[in-house]
Amino acid sequence: MKYDRIFNFSAGPAMMPEPVLEEIRDELLNYRGSGMSVMEMSHRGKVFGGILEEAEADIRRLMNIPDNYRVLFVQGGGTLQFAMVPINLMRRGLACYVETGQWSKKAIAEARKYGDVIISASSADTGFTSVPDCSDLPVPDGADYVYICENETINGVRFNALPNAGGLPLVSDQSSMFLSEPCDVSKYGLIWAGVQKNLGPAGTTVVIIRDDLIRDDLDPKTPVYLSYKTHADNDSMYNTPNCWAIYCIGKVFKYLLANGGLDEMARVNREKAAVLYDFLDSSEMFRGMAGRADRSLMNVTFYSGSADLDAETIAAAKAAGFDGLKGHRSLGGLRASIYNAMPKEGVQALVDFLDGFEREHKQDSK
Amino acid sequence: MKYDRIFNFSAGPAMMPEPVLEEIRDELLNYRGSGMSVMEMSHRGKVFGGILEEAEADIRRLMNIPDNYRVLFVQGGGTLQFAMVPINLMRRGLACYVETGQWSKKAIAEARKYGDVIISASSADTGFTSVPDCSDLPVPDGADYVYICENETINGVRFNALPNAGGLPLVSDQSSMFLSEPCDVSKYGLIWAGVQKNLGPAGTTVVIIRDDLIRDDLDPKTPVYLSYKTHADNDSMYNTPNCWAIYCIGKVFKYLLANGGLDEMARVNREKAAVLYDFLDSSEMFRGMAGRADRSLMNVTFYSGSADLDAETIAAAKAAGFDGLKGHRSLGGLRASIYNAMPKEGVQALVDFLDGFEREHKQDSK
Repeated sequence: MKYDRIFNFSAGPAMMPEPVLEEIRDELLNYRGSGMSVMEMSHRGKVFGGILEEAEADIRRLMNIPDNYRVLFVQGGGTLQFAMVPINLMRRGLACYVETGQWSKKAIAEARKYGDVIISASSADTGFTSVPDCSDLPVPDGADYVYICENETINGVRFNALPNAGGLPLVSDQSSMFLSEPCDVSKYGLIWAGVQKNLGPAGTTVVIIRDDLIRDDLDPKTPVYLSYKTHADNDSMYNTPNCWAIYCIGKVFKYLLANGGLDEMARVNREKAAVLYDFLDSSEMFRGMAGRADRSLMNVTFYSGSADLDAETIAAAKAAGFDGLKGHRSLGGLRASIYNAMPKEGVQALVDFLDGFEREHKQDSK
Repeated sequence: MKYDRIFNFSAGPAMMPEPVLEEIRDELLNYRGSGMSVMEMSHRGKVFGGILEEAEADIRRLMNIPDNYRVLFVQGGGTLQFAMVPINLMRRGLACYVETGQWSKKAIAEARKYGDVIISASSADTGFTSVPDCSDLPVPDGADYVYICENETINGVRFNALPNAGGLPLVSDQSSMFLSEPCDVSKYGLIWAGVQKNLGPAGTTVVIIRDDLIRDDLDPKTPVYLSYKTHADNDSMYNTPNCWAIYCIGKVFKYLLANGGLDEMARVNREKAAVLYDFLDSSEMFRGMAGRADRSLMNVTFYSGSADLDAETIAAAKAAGFDGLKGHRSLGGLRASIYNAMPKEGVQALVDFLDGFEREHKQDSK
């Protein structure tokens, strides 16, 4: 690879498109004749104002976001969203969560501080290797919203159909699948996504919120930063935002638009995932962790059945230039995260490597 | 200037040292043979782990931070610190604030959500163009801490002597003077600073906190992200931090260490400020806003007495390559922010320009 870059299969932060990185490098000391790096310029100045406006316009175009939704850029990552969602959306103190793994569990734990949480469906019984059927979700009277983590990175499962939320606003953590395929925003009340997986550098979260969910009657003890209204009323500039991350993901938005948009991303991502899952389904050494029907297209989890052999595979892969394959520390095994910016050739090269490793290993054991 | 860069006098984000920007550019597509950009690498990997460890070690060396203080990197800017300080430090529901301008006022407004706030001293009577005498601060029984904004960017005033906090922990917002001069950390309970003025890109806040102030008995409704203990227990890695900002400011720490440390910064910053204040004191057209005794070394505020002439000066300066001189929108006038990375030649060039502008103007009026 040019620049001696490696294929990085980390669950995030993760790879960015090389042409985007080249542009960022070339503009680093002087952004388009401004005489400044984007890191150095006032967030209140015209140049950064233009960057922010374009980023918002581009993501609106990419996702076809309806006019009655606001796009916000907020710091604090998913951890802050776990609190901001209930703080802002629990009007009546009751919310429904679907439990599909560690990220929804974290969201549930945080939400319980602010009201009652009903686990409307759970895949705990399968060890979170599946997504429960949510076509007939029990939604009690008086609940404020239904919450899902649409793709769980750790076990590598995803929702293929959105829950029937019974007319309640659907809130989705899309962090690990954001912009990886088309999304009908009108089906959601709120979508949030940390950008450090499919988009760019860690440190900003995109929040897409239907405007009727932006409230000004929050608990008076709510920190001003934690109110969506603060960010909405000030176009994400109540205080200095993470200008650098907004600049970088803005470039990724343009890159996606120039390369076929989300339809094309979905096509490529399906192809990439198929290369890997097809190998796993035919391998005698490795097998996938997630149930077939709910397999993530972004995080492919697998294992050999032996912790030692898993570790050996990870070490050999790393030596061969495939980084970040270690499964989450809570689960073990291997995980290949193949977000938007992972090229198909990277996935194919990994499969070739794993296939070779398996053959060699069989040879050795003969 | 190399790369056609300008002198940017913005109050922040602000200039960074050019050699630091060059290093960042050169490492952008492949950080030191890792095959990844720092923006792309897992925060849990060894490479980023090393960057974070070095950044902490270097700031400890720079500021000579005692062992019983923790260094945390937190997102959300000053706005989140305005809430985190009272949420974490108000054990008994009472705190003393010194009111010296808009930033301390914002801190006060946020703190009032969580307990009683006493304004122990204020410079409201001078329109915040001074800092009140705090040598004999009235500190009531039962108060939890004393809070100051050590340099107020808007009016351009600073504390030259720390308040007598009567034995209470002193909390200081050092955002706009951080690492601009030596600081005896042991005199404080907590120091926080947004990094986008003296250090690097917006989106991370450095918090230096004495370990006895890190509590685990907070209000159970506290979002997990807003507890200092969350960040301390996880070495700023409870969730994905702003890796990029930590990487960039880590480079600035090394640059400061290699260039004489904070003593040298203080010497240069005093010289730079003197160049500008000496001009203002001798000018017939412009005068400084802040009282002489309390003048900031970082934010030099001045005005002509005519809003039109101020605007004319700002426009002419911009055309001549001096950006960001417009005073804060709440105050008008001009403001030259001359943080660490503004070279003395930049300040001298600005003074030469202002002097020329004044002479020309006198000529015109004759």
